[in-house]
Amino acid sequence: MSPAAPHPLVYDDLLRTALREDLGLAGDLTAEATVGADRTGSAVVRAREPGVVAGLEVVARLFAIVDPAVEVRLLVADGDAVAAGTDLATLRGAARSILLGERTALNLLGRLCGIATATRSVVDAIAGTRATVTCTRKTTPGLRGLEKYAVRVGGGANHRFGLDDAVLVKDNHIAFAGGLRAALEGIAGRVGHLVPVEVEVDTEAQLDELLLLVEHGHRVDVVMLDNFSPERLQAAVRRIGGRLVVEASGGITLERAREVAETGVDVLSLGWLTHSVPALDVGLDVVPANRVA
Amino acid sequence: MSPAAPHPLVYDDLLRTALREDLGLAGDLTAEATVGADRTGSAVVRAREPGVVAGLEVVARLFAIVDPAVEVRLLVADGDAVAAGTDLATLRGAARSILLGERTALNLLGRLCGIATATRSVVDAIAGTRATVTCTRKTTPGLRGLEKYAVRVGGGANHRFGLDDAVLVKDNHIAFAGGLRAALEGIAGRVGHLVPVEVEVDTEAQLDELLLLVEHGHRVDVVMLDNFSPERLQAAVRRIGGRLVVEASGGITLERAREVAETGVDVLSLGWLTHSVPALDVGLDVVPANRVA
Amino acid sequence: MSPAAPHPLVYDDLLRTALREDLGLAGDLTAEATVGADRTGSAVVRAREPGVVAGLEVVARLFAIVDPAVEVRLLVADGDAVAAGTDLATLRGAARSILLGERTALNLLGRLCGIATATRSVVDAIAGTRATVTCTRKTTPGLRGLEKYAVRVGGGANHRFGLDDAVLVKDNHIAFAGGLRAALEGIAGRVGHLVPVEVEVDTEAQLDELLLLVEHGHRVDVVMLDNFSPERLQAAVRRIGGRLVVEASGGITLERAREVAETGVDVLSLGWLTHSVPALDVGLDVVPANRVA
Amino acid sequence: MSPAAPHPLVYDDLLRTALREDLGLAGDLTAEATVGADRTGSAVVRAREPGVVAGLEVVARLFAIVDPAVEVRLLVADGDAVAAGTDLATLRGAARSILLGERTALNLLGRLCGIATATRSVVDAIAGTRATVTCTRKTTPGLRGLEKYAVRVGGGANHRFGLDDAVLVKDNHIAFAGGLRAALEGIAGRVGHLVPVEVEVDTEAQLDELLLLVEHGHRVDVVMLDNFSPERLQAAVRRIGGRLVVEASGGITLERAREVAETGVDVLSLGWLTHSVPALDVGLDVVPANRVA
Amino acid sequence: MSPAAPHPLVYDDLLRTALREDLGLAGDLTAEATVGADRTGSAVVRAREPGVVAGLEVVARLFAIVDPAVEVRLLVADGDAVAAGTDLATLRGAARSILLGERTALNLLGRLCGIATATRSVVDAIAGTRATVTCTRKTTPGLRGLEKYAVRVGGGANHRFGLDDAVLVKDNHIAFAGGLRAALEGIAGRVGHLVPVEVEVDTEAQLDELLLLVEHGHRVDVVMLDNFSPERLQAAVRRIGGRLVVEASGGITLERAREVAETGVDVLSLGWLTHSVPALDVGLDVVPANRVA
Amino acid sequence: MSPAAPHPLVYDDLLRTALREDLGLAGDLTAEATVGADRTGSAVVRAREPGVVAGLEVVARLFAIVDPAVEVRLLVADGDAVAAGTDLATLRGAARSILLGERTALNLLGRLCGIATATRSVVDAIAGTRATVTCTRKTTPGLRGLEKYAVRVGGGANHRFGLDDAVLVKDNHIAFAGGLRAALEGIAGRVGHLVPVEVEVDTEAQLDELLLLVEHGHRVDVVMLDNFSPERLQAAVRRIGGRLVVEASGGITLERAREVAETGVDVLSLGWLTHSVPALDVGLDVVPANRVA
Repeated sequence: MSPAAPHPLVYDDLLRTALREDLGLAGDLTAEATVGADRTGSAVVRAREPGVVAGLEVVARLFAIVDPAVEVRLLVADGDAVAAGTDLATLRGAARSILLGERTALNLLGRLCGIATATRSVVDAIAGTRATVTCTRKTTPGLRGLEKYAVRVGGGANHRFGLDDAVLVKDNHIAFAGGLRAALEGIAGRVGHLVPVEVEVDTEAQLDELLLLVEHGHRVDVVMLDNFSPERLQAAVRRIGGRLVVEASGGITLERAREVAETGVDVLSLGWLTHSVPALDVGLDVVPANRVA
Repeated sequence: MSPAAPHPLVYDDLLRTALREDLGLAGDLTAEATVGADRTGSAVVRAREPGVVAGLEVVARLFAIVDPAVEVRLLVADGDAVAAGTDLATLRGAARSILLGERTALNLLGRLCGIATATRSVVDAIAGTRATVTCTRKTTPGLRGLEKYAVRVGGGANHRFGLDDAVLVKDNHIAFAGGLRAALEGIAGRVGHLVPVEVEVDTEAQLDELLLLVEHGHRVDVVMLDNFSPERLQAAVRRIGGRLVVEASGGITLERAREVAETGVDVLSLGWLTHSVPALDVGLDVVPANRVA
Repeated sequence: MSPAAPHPLVYDDLLRTALREDLGLAGDLTAEATVGADRTGSAVVRAREPGVVAGLEVVARLFAIVDPAVEVRLLVADGDAVAAGTDLATLRGAARSILLGERTALNLLGRLCGIATATRSVVDAIAGTRATVTCTRKTTPGLRGLEKYAVRVGGGANHRFGLDDAVLVKDNHIAFAGGLRAALEGIAGRVGHLVPVEVEVDTEAQLDELLLLVEHGHRVDVVMLDNFSPERLQAAVRRIGGRLVVEASGGITLERAREVAETGVDVLSLGWLTHSVPALDVGLDVVPANRVA
Repeated sequence: MSPAAPHPLVYDDLLRTALREDLGLAGDLTAEATVGADRTGSAVVRAREPGVVAGLEVVARLFAIVDPAVEVRLLVADGDAVAAGTDLATLRGAARSILLGERTALNLLGRLCGIATATRSVVDAIAGTRATVTCTRKTTPGLRGLEKYAVRVGGGANHRFGLDDAVLVKDNHIAFAGGLRAALEGIAGRVGHLVPVEVEVDTEAQLDELLLLVEHGHRVDVVMLDNFSPERLQAAVRRIGGRLVVEASGGITLERAREVAETGVDVLSLGWLTHSVPALDVGLDVVPANRVA
Repeated sequence: MSPAAPHPLVYDDLLRTALREDLGLAGDLTAEATVGADRTGSAVVRAREPGVVAGLEVVARLFAIVDPAVEVRLLVADGDAVAAGTDLATLRGAARSILLGERTALNLLGRLCGIATATRSVVDAIAGTRATVTCTRKTTPGLRGLEKYAVRVGGGANHRFGLDDAVLVKDNHIAFAGGLRAALEGIAGRVGHLVPVEVEVDTEAQLDELLLLVEHGHRVDVVMLDNFSPERLQAAVRRIGGRLVVEASGGITLERAREVAETGVDVLSLGWLTHSVPALDVGLDVVPANRVA
Repeated sequence: MSPAAPHPLVYDDLLRTALREDLGLAGDLTAEATVGADRTGSAVVRAREPGVVAGLEVVARLFAIVDPAVEVRLLVADGDAVAAGTDLATLRGAARSILLGERTALNLLGRLCGIATATRSVVDAIAGTRATVTCTRKTTPGLRGLEKYAVRVGGGANHRFGLDDAVLVKDNHIAFAGGLRAALEGIAGRVGHLVPVEVEVDTEAQLDELLLLVEHGHRVDVVMLDNFSPERLQAAVRRIGGRLVVEASGGITLERAREVAETGVDVLSLGWLTHSVPALDVGLDVVPANRVA
């Protein structure tokens, strides 16, 4: 079962903002000058390269905002891996409406498919290991909800959605708090029972300190091993011995993913899934039709 | 002189939206649990790889929204090419405020620097030719104003900002209008004297038809040659003979840019500058300081 | 063919703001106290004086926001010149919904018709000359997209929609730049190939300087002759000799328009079309009907 | 004492919307190309024709949004009657900031001064009579709060701000309710003790019916006599005999105002004050200064 | 006849904000993990304790925002007094949509019913006296329009909706103005003929001063007697002798309401109706049904 | 250490909305008519009954929005328990600004203090037990972030902030999923490693089923025992034996809290803390001062 697309309440404002960026105050000068208001037609949204589809419902919603009379038919589903040239959806309605939504729809769709495709490639690369793939908070401003959805579509999971849904103690916090112990003491009594606690460690010494604190009763659920080589990861996993969920992060490219996953870590945390993947090449081809009766 | 950064009215809503995405309703659980409200400190925003800087004023504005008491000092300027490890800015103020803005600031800065860096690489690659580099409308929804600015910072120019500031007749319009002549006839009398007119052509036959229409008095300012090989571009430039500004588009990678520019075209139009470049790796390192008096 | 009305994305926020201004928190006290919730009826929107209609689709959209069940039938089209007493549209639905939208609808419609009517009167006055009529940026805050549309409906064209879609060098810029040459040098290389360049001149000496700079290769597309008498305009047009599009601006009343147009200028630029025209007198007359079944 | 200007919470959104209309995504192309970022200067906001000033604090607020470093000094006060050529305010700061706010500031100021000037002319025309001048709900969408303020500045009073602050029974309500008695019965018990009740009448017969109902205990505070000639107004005022506040409305031009006021009515209700007055001609002249240190 | 519910324009933003609070960026994790997208079902909204219903149309609107395909059928009407266990409405549609809106719907409905129930209890307690019940401006931020509606549903009336719809001179104003006379002199000529004037008095001496000023021609419509005992109220009512509408305020509990009402005052003003009443216990019970065809 | 107040980004929109509710378009009629613009003064915000303070920084922020020149000095801190009559804060500045913000400030403060006071009373009542107090999602629409903060101020913890930060399987989900096992199977693989899983049970049989599933490897972190008597709670706690965090919910009044807490449960979940507590009585007393120089 493919993950549920976010509710439009999560992204409607983004769609309106994006459409207004494109329309300005003067609107679509080209279409209004060259295409009659009564022209109708069909169009096909098509993948011009192979990839994993994500964002089709968002595209449908966008055209519903542009013109509720445009009929959108989805030909594949989010999560499908498609070949180059695959038709993803058809549109049917007023020509000007199709042209008006075209660029914004493709900008969104290309980006979300790009993320899903990249995620899937990592998921496939580590198939058979115990590890799962997650993204980070390194998302495009304003698009976090959608980009995290694209990761789920690709088969990945989501790490924190924001500063508000889990504790993640990093170097900077430890420095400010005056050490890991002080940081964990700060957490005790201030963090609710539904908030997971994760700590990032950069060295084996930090990991040992952490494990000692856990033994002494400090609540920690997850440890993130940052920039550890596969060998060090493997050793750390053994050392942790199942007491904590183990994440690996830092420099995990598609090429290195399997090697990392095979160390026994539970989670691969990949920032580049959302900040540095190319858009999938998607296009919209219009077929003129008869005029509106 | 570096281009002017957009006025905050253009991007303040984006900054607020992005910060709210990260804060949720519960706020920064980690910092509030581990770092005292009276802690202050400094931080350095640093490039972790070489690139062209873009977006520093946006980052400064972001921290002004987070906490006007945070002092931001910019150490380089937008447009500067920096080496890996270069300090870009320092922050000084409440530790929690710095931590709160960190991720959102880096997400924006990394993306804008990535675009500026990619643009600069193309601009440098075609140095000495007559051609300029422009981006397209293939921008991230909600970030168009900032992304187009990053292109300018990189030394590129901007093509249309939206459907509203120039006519660009493409295949789809021609098909709907029933031919190029009909399309250009539609434009006559409907488009004001301050609106440029551009036509995209895919074949030499279309180019000939266009030039004939121009001879017959149709106003066209720019022609876009889509997916022409360098040889075909060169021939087309000769054929156009300076009567129109000539743009080349389609498949122009960094590697192919110089070859295309040397055909004599005026403009290279590159969608990937804004939809498929990796973020520049930028980080924020905090230095704890004494408590607030 | 009448110009296309702006997409609702351009003005929906304005409609909601306007309706909320009228509703406050307490709503329509009078209708709720005197007219039953189950009352239905029809109403006619009527021109009480002759004029050119503009804004009917905006009115239809407004009632769709108030109550999607209200049926709106447009009896004339934007751009039609109507006599006093002409019915423009009929409404049919819940009495309270019609009453709720009445004032806001008329406020908008009266204003837009007023602008279209004034524009048409100038367009008619200069019929047969080469000149076209344009409005300026002297529009009502928040209504620019709609007011510029009303000008198009009246047969006029639009000048700049904002500071962002063309360069217009005026006295103040020249003073700051330290002379016209410096200003034009600033533009070179900073303004993209799709951005038109216009310069305002107040004297023949400035015009001569401008033409010399154009001869020396500075790109200028349009010259605006501000506050020139017809005689001076005529001389200037001759002197420019077709090298630039020529606009006349400043003090061009309806009465003076033809005289100005006959000087051979290409464009009459009229601020008063949007800042100082009376609203057209439009009203809404309700016909009570049977109760809702 | 001049009336208090509305709180910025009432109009800040309008200012931002208006500035964004003018800036688009690309910003002020001309100023950024021709005027250096380090240029400073002064400017004078000046009345180019005589009138009553309204909106200066709004202009000051607008520049505070554009650039808090621009110093705005108001030289006259809202409510002052000024001669042509009077300096209203000086600005001092970054040249680009002054240029950026110029047009939006003048658009607002010209409109508000136009309304105040028109109102003052009527107020002066009826000086010595018992009548006061009020505006109506026929205001520009989105500007009601400011336009009603401009009427107060001109010496007028405000009628209803919306459907929510008083009951005003008009023809349409009576028709729907099935007669005036039914309408007034609807009001009884549904309208709070702080809500005034006004009834519009078009004929003497309606007035008689109304007075009878008032005698029988129906609460009515104000009667509006619509489109009554001065003679009929005078008779009606006598007939009402002080039992109700009396408003005259419909076709009351500046020329007819005194004649109407002398009939003894309490209030003149004038829609044209806000929907059909020309903007006052105001301008902004810049004086370049030395560069920023 | 029950009062009209506010127009959705008054509360739609509140509904969206409330739903977004609940959805965050990640959406309904539980429903998406446990309930298939194709599941449909019915649900009943039920009162779990006796009370007066208010807000059902708001709930219907909320589900229309969540999912227009959810059918909402209202089984009772706002204003109905219902027993514990009464079904208020049924929902039918996608299971996930029902679950998504559930909590927000109940939060609103419980609050509005709580207010209506409390209001009704006071209205019933004073039945047969001349007094009416009103609420105050002590409402929940953002909910004023809805909470005042709930008061009307309960049989109460509304006092001021804001600072803008009536003058209410209180201690603080008198102190700032330098006495009651000065305050009333300030009002003269500054307050339009449609704005009621109310004065709060705390002592018999203040009341005497007020009555004297009224005799001398100062316009005052309503007097509020704050924190007067029943005996003092009765004496004051006699002393006022019908010249002013009389409000009692301060410490009027449900238990004390009748005693106060029987003193002859016109209005009981009760802040606690909106700031301190418990929510009515309402719940939503789902009945799973067959899958979507 | 008191919990950190939410960042203003979380509640600024609420403050603006609330202030606009109170201002309407006409503003503060009373203050503007009776208090000169140049009047200044001080005011004290005071608790009129004993309670726990929450929301003082929010009040300070509100006055900063109303008028940044108003000086706000907080005399106590959020979390302090104060006696009746305690001064909480002083304001100093323009009289009209203080009056403008008064009601909105008190409406918010009273509500938040009410919640903190109620929470503290429960926290105190269960002191010495292992149990903590949490609120629920039964919050006022639009105020969730602030109300949950008030609970923390009172010494409570927060349960879920929304549907998005934890899985909570309730009856309805189980019914839709076709049983608890199916529901938990749905969760497996669909919920990230940072998302806690909680299940609500109403009977001992359900609890047994849950514990069996946990034994078989289903991830469940928390169990909520709904409407269990103290005896049944005690038995359930023993049965669970520390394998899950245990919450009690349903009908836990202040009076019953200790008895429930002493059963050994970990968490008391109380909806009434946010939906049914009376506002704390807080007031603002103004002291007029000398006029502004």
